[in-house]
Amino acid sequence: MPSSLNPNLKKLLATNKKHRLTANAYAKAILAGDRVVLGQAITIIESVHAVDQKLAVEIIDQCLPYANKSIRIGITGAPGVGKSTFVEAFGSYLIEKGCKLAVLAVDPSSQLSGGSILGDKTRMERLSSNDAAFIRPSPSGASLGGVARKTRETMILCEAAGYDTILVETVGVGQSEIMVHSMVDLFLLLLLPGAGDELQGIKRGIVEMADIAIINKSDGDRITLAKQTKRDYKNALHLFPPKDSNWTATAIACSALHEQGMEEIWEQIEQYFGLIKENNFFQKNRQNQTKYWLTSSINQGLQDAFFKNKDIQQELIKIEKAVLNNQLSPFQGANSLLAFFKNLKDEK
Amino acid sequence: MPSSLNPNLKKLLATNKKHRLTANAYAKAILAGDRVVLGQAITIIESVHAVDQKLAVEIIDQCLPYANKSIRIGITGAPGVGKSTFVEAFGSYLIEKGCKLAVLAVDPSSQLSGGSILGDKTRMERLSSNDAAFIRPSPSGASLGGVARKTRETMILCEAAGYDTILVETVGVGQSEIMVHSMVDLFLLLLLPGAGDELQGIKRGIVEMADIAIINKSDGDRITLAKQTKRDYKNALHLFPPKDSNWTATAIACSALHEQGMEEIWEQIEQYFGLIKENNFFQKNRQNQTKYWLTSSINQGLQDAFFKNKDIQQELIKIEKAVLNNQLSPFQGANSLLAFFKNLKDEK
Repeated sequence: MPSSLNPNLKKLLATNKKHRLTANAYAKAILAGDRVVLGQAITIIESVHAVDQKLAVEIIDQCLPYANKSIRIGITGAPGVGKSTFVEAFGSYLIEKGCKLAVLAVDPSSQLSGGSILGDKTRMERLSSNDAAFIRPSPSGASLGGVARKTRETMILCEAAGYDTILVETVGVGQSEIMVHSMVDLFLLLLLPGAGDELQGIKRGIVEMADIAIINKSDGDRITLAKQTKRDYKNALHLFPPKDSNWTATAIACSALHEQGMEEIWEQIEQYFGLIKENNFFQKNRQNQTKYWLTSSINQGLQDAFFKNKDIQQELIKIEKAVLNNQLSPFQGANSLLAFFKNLKDEK
Repeated sequence: MPSSLNPNLKKLLATNKKHRLTANAYAKAILAGDRVVLGQAITIIESVHAVDQKLAVEIIDQCLPYANKSIRIGITGAPGVGKSTFVEAFGSYLIEKGCKLAVLAVDPSSQLSGGSILGDKTRMERLSSNDAAFIRPSPSGASLGGVARKTRETMILCEAAGYDTILVETVGVGQSEIMVHSMVDLFLLLLLPGAGDELQGIKRGIVEMADIAIINKSDGDRITLAKQTKRDYKNALHLFPPKDSNWTATAIACSALHEQGMEEIWEQIEQYFGLIKENNFFQKNRQNQTKYWLTSSINQGLQDAFFKNKDIQQELIKIEKAVLNNQLSPFQGANSLLAFFKNLKDEK
């Protein structure tokens, strides 16, 4: 294994946040499992400066061959469902089992609300003080796509640093679940006993995405209700089409507060990974995810270049108005705009 | 109301399928409710010839101000669930109530399998011989996007011709439901009693899309099972997040064969439209759909132009390989390809 940084360089990094090493030095230290350097490299990934972005690409490229060896688990649930408590309890359970755990988040609302899911590390006291856990709040970014991309790149560095279990949290309120779903192997949905109300905040389509529905806060007076909710979801999940993974979605009740049910959840997760590694879905899904990110990044790049153009923006306003007033069909509107774009280019 | 074509021109159209009128003549006859001309105009929409495509745009633009006044209903369900029988029974019921009904289809598999959903009109004997019904099988097309686009344009002509209720059938096996969902006001899902098995052919996400789940073939020995299935789905649909329309998805059992349950279905549909017209979802949804088609047509156009480029295709193969071998991150791969594209353009 490559050696880590010398103490003097580490001190320099810690005191001068703007100091940069070579990509090679970052990669070496990450591969040696150096948490301080890992954190700094993630900051470089999240940076908007062109020099940092170039450096980030180099670091990622050097880490890539060592990545991809973890299991990746997505977790979602509406605010109030107890996500932080669950991650604290389940994460501690995993670490006791010998896992090295990285907890990341995709929360595009964090820069608006000021409070990221993982922003308040005090809610994960045990995990954040444990050397086997690496916790990183959601990156900020102008767009969800940007936030998700940075999280996916961060995942690569964490895997290269030896974290074998990656949890990616998200908040269930928007498109972020689709993004997270396309970067994990398994998707957990946290619910409350007596489910229904807390789903008000959850986007449609997410329940069906879940591989395991976890009914949290199954403690005290709520145990009976939680059992009923678990049964209801088990029945409901059976009425939906089978998953490509061939896994039958299931429901489990737990109490993160009392750390009950963690073992049952882990058993299900092990069963799930056993199945998808045997039937090769694990590998196929990761390849599809990689292709998805390649294609969607290309398409996003094309669209960005197009819609950033000031002339296009002005023309689009006119066309959209005509289309919404039924003077132009949407297809005809699209054709005019594309023809307008072509003329712009030819004129140059 | 504008007058229809004179009989001589009609005869000419019927005998010479390649004969074309002016856009104005087509639009006039369509607005007068002329079925033969409507059919011909749809053929022009479906044509791949550049001259026809130009003519189609003109016809659609002239019809647009008279469109948008119908209710649009999507219907899906796996093969064998009884879609044709249901459309025959439900369509006949609607016509008895005084509706003018157009039945369209989005079935991108039809050119592969040779058998479109509506291709076999003999399965809809009563409807196809009724002047108040206009039945049109799925257009063929290279891509699902193309097929769906043509169906959406056909819808406009049908509405201009006075059809006040549009049914759009689809087969539940792919992305076509998302396309159909984005052109209708209401989405029906046909199921069988004892549901589960027939869902094998249905894509995930579709069950959640349904506004009304219809358990067909609730007759003979299957009545009890159908009632149970209806209850199961009603319970399951409640466990999912509320819809933007504020409508609570429901389940109804029916027997299309014995024409039982049609009234109850119609009552639910009326309630649905009452709700969404009152809470303004109807209007908002249609505007969002129009914007969706505008944006997705623009993006599709951009992608087509990009990926059709032979140099891009060759470069993409190399990049995809490097990305799948973890030599390059998907984002980095996308950046290289976009940079390659920019150089190509600048060289010109």
